[in-house]
Amino acid sequence: MSKVIFTSPEQAEATFYQAMERMDLEAMMSVWAEDEEVVCIHPGGPRITGLASVRESWRQVFASGARFHVRVMGEVVMRGLLMSVHSVNEILFVGENGDQPAPPIVATNVYFRGAAGWHMVSHHASILPHADIPQDIDTRHGSNTVH
Amino acid sequence: MSKVIFTSPEQAEATFYQAMERMDLEAMMSVWAEDEEVVCIHPGGPRITGLASVRESWRQVFASGARFHVRVMGEVVMRGLLMSVHSVNEILFVGENGDQPAPPIVATNVYFRGAAGWHMVSHHASILPHADIPQDIDTRHGSNTVH
Repeated sequence: MSKVIFTSPEQAEATFYQAMERMDLEAMMSVWAEDEEVVCIHPGGPRITGLASVRESWRQVFASGARFHVRVMGEVVMRGLLMSVHSVNEILFVGENGDQPAPPIVATNVYFRGAAGWHMVSHHASILPHADIPQDIDTRHGSNTVH
Repeated sequence: MSKVIFTSPEQAEATFYQAMERMDLEAMMSVWAEDEEVVCIHPGGPRITGLASVRESWRQVFASGARFHVRVMGEVVMRGLLMSVHSVNEILFVGENGDQPAPPIVATNVYFRGAAGWHMVSHHASILPHADIPQDIDTRHGSNTVH
């Protein structure tokens, strides 16, 4: 597979959430680093290590056929020269009309910069206590919508 | 506060889990970076940002008076020159004799290297599906116990 080169962690992250919405497994996997041990934790799920297992986990997520929109907000970025850590709140909108918010999720996304640009090495997502989100939305700026 | 200098992320991480066990707030906070925006997510809890809020969250955890031992295992490390990401499984042993395992936790710990050595910038912990842990213990090596 010819590797997509992302010139910033933001570009890799935008592709990550677009791939989630579009259930595009190849686009999703283009975001992940191939030359590092990678870790993925879906909300409420086990820890998945290694590129092949991470790919299989996303294949299963997309095979479920559940359609959703993702709103990403409240991003906190901790940036280094060759690594970037993004803490984000994710709201998935599900249902036939894509207007029913699922329980809010917090994700820690870590990107490494290598010879082939920026790629994800770790995605840790977990469900937030529901009462906590509105406050978070109010107090964080820089919200954005991916779709 | 005179800042403790950790010469490796492993040293910072060992102090982090020792501070948890000893309920030592000053030791805990010596691990956290003071010059970065920091993020802490306790299992099932909200996202906490900023050093003062992170400190207050640990003060509350320790003030609860619950004593426990922590076993850290199955570490996966993604290391850069100035940043290191550690995915670990945590088993907390609780109860009067400290021998009752609580639900297993997975944590993503991120450390930055600055002028004052290595410090934590992000701790994201969430509860694992219980059935998943024994397999993880069996398949991962390099387990170690902090106490």
